[in-house]
Amino acid sequence: MKKIIIAVSAILLIAACKNKNQEAAKPHIESMAEIFPKPKVEIKTVGIYLYDGYSALDALGPYSVFTRLMGSHVFFIAKHKGIVEDGAGLKVQVDTTIDEVKHLDILLIPGGLAQTYQETKDEALLNWIRSIDSTSKYTTSVCTGAWILGATGLLKDKEATTHWYGKKILANDFGAKIQDKRYTHTGKYWTAAGVSAGIDMSLALLNEIAGEKYTRAAMLDLEYDPQPPFKGGNENTADKNMVEGMRALYDGGMETALHPEKAFKEMKFDNKKDFVCGMPISAGIADTVHYNGKVYGFCSTGCKDEFKKNPSAYVSK
Amino acid sequence: MKKIIIAVSAILLIAACKNKNQEAAKPHIESMAEIFPKPKVEIKTVGIYLYDGYSALDALGPYSVFTRLMGSHVFFIAKHKGIVEDGAGLKVQVDTTIDEVKHLDILLIPGGLAQTYQETKDEALLNWIRSIDSTSKYTTSVCTGAWILGATGLLKDKEATTHWYGKKILANDFGAKIQDKRYTHTGKYWTAAGVSAGIDMSLALLNEIAGEKYTRAAMLDLEYDPQPPFKGGNENTADKNMVEGMRALYDGGMETALHPEKAFKEMKFDNKKDFVCGMPISAGIADTVHYNGKVYGFCSTGCKDEFKKNPSAYVSK
Repeated sequence: MKKIIIAVSAILLIAACKNKNQEAAKPHIESMAEIFPKPKVEIKTVGIYLYDGYSALDALGPYSVFTRLMGSHVFFIAKHKGIVEDGAGLKVQVDTTIDEVKHLDILLIPGGLAQTYQETKDEALLNWIRSIDSTSKYTTSVCTGAWILGATGLLKDKEATTHWYGKKILANDFGAKIQDKRYTHTGKYWTAAGVSAGIDMSLALLNEIAGEKYTRAAMLDLEYDPQPPFKGGNENTADKNMVEGMRALYDGGMETALHPEKAFKEMKFDNKKDFVCGMPISAGIADTVHYNGKVYGFCSTGCKDEFKKNPSAYVSK
Repeated sequence: MKKIIIAVSAILLIAACKNKNQEAAKPHIESMAEIFPKPKVEIKTVGIYLYDGYSALDALGPYSVFTRLMGSHVFFIAKHKGIVEDGAGLKVQVDTTIDEVKHLDILLIPGGLAQTYQETKDEALLNWIRSIDSTSKYTTSVCTGAWILGATGLLKDKEATTHWYGKKILANDFGAKIQDKRYTHTGKYWTAAGVSAGIDMSLALLNEIAGEKYTRAAMLDLEYDPQPPFKGGNENTADKNMVEGMRALYDGGMETALHPEKAFKEMKFDNKKDFVCGMPISAGIADTVHYNGKVYGFCSTGCKDEFKKNPSAYVSK
């Protein structure tokens, strides 16, 4: 494993580099240990598993919390070294593969949509997760990352949560006891609801690891005092029609993942990603367009129709 | 500028790939346009400026919101192509330089600490920001990113906010009228408080651009229904001693940035980053240690003292 630097948040730890003059000027703060007391649970390694198509905030919300945990090395892990893309343009360089990591104090698995479901079919990955879990202090998921964790069998008959859209699959396919909560913990298994819930879960876990004072200091560093423009960011408080509409959209996105028999398989395409939604063609194609002598694949009829409105604009980009 | 794909969130737009059967099955949702009405303001490009030492969530919270804005290309811009590091381990591949970008509908500048302050001294960067601002629809900052925006003169005598620690510098050095708010907007200038406030600001801006219905749908997609473990993530509600202690820590981290005359300049060091806090040596060194025939630099006495407790552990990593 390559050399690593102590992985701690830049802002927090640059901040942590205090000098004695400043201490003298503020005698009521005796030491850094007063603000950040020694954690009760020792966490040396936090590994975040990344894969193409994960949802960026699922991973980087918790990253931003755990990097406040001093002395911990927070890093990213993928099947192969190199760039991992979230599908919306973020390219993260990952330097560590699952083959290189035998132990983690905390494992975190972020979610996504179709590509997340495909990860649940990768037995090598699932075996790696089971192996890491056998000695981890905490095994955690955010959003539909719970599908991947659930596919290992580790959430079976345990209380868990996921993105509101993902609950049905998590219960039916992987046997979790779905909770209508922002995050859950059953022993060392922590699961968060959708996307932004990973921040709340990580802070709650930080509280378990390092206590209230430490957590409050991290929150002050992150200025975590959320003020959403509206209430209603969850399934139960949002407009019912909107929830059903969103569910139909997600269903569309899951179509080829859930029904691979419907996807084109043997055909070669001239695009690497669906022009409209950005989904990699390798994730499964449900429809095609012939345009200017080329064959372009699309994940669904919806994306194909959108493309056909103005194909030259898409192809020229 | 390299080829780009339509930059839209994977989860949202894979979701957007609906098919007609599903529409038929849910007749109360007539079309995607019902859930995501056409935005009132057309936003084609959202550029997020990255630099070594930025705070990851400052940039990636807003990224996660703006990538829900369909038809927009959200991308990262830096002084040079290649990897940009947030200082805590996140390596993002940036493919677009400031020289290549002449226009943006939205410019977003994230914050950090010492390295953010150093960016305020880079006239070429400030001129680029002024130039982009001359035709932008919105010019925005998160956290101490307001220092960089302020250094251009664009926030002078305007209402603005920043991370609670950064308010004094934003007012004194750059003449902004500091507001005690989660985010502010004066005309097209939007500024957010610390780190996580970028999510709230971006959602409020999305609301201005695309309206309440669109914003609520994006919130449902992100499941943005925050439930912090504690209240008190801001300067006014947190414990006063903790606020003062954190302020002293930040002051320490800012020492060589604010007082470069105190930093070692001509000396060469055997480490690239401060072992303890991860700050690049190039950002300025206030103290040194000779160990095993090598000279290591540290941003402050505090980091040096921490290193000296167990130097072999740091050097071996």
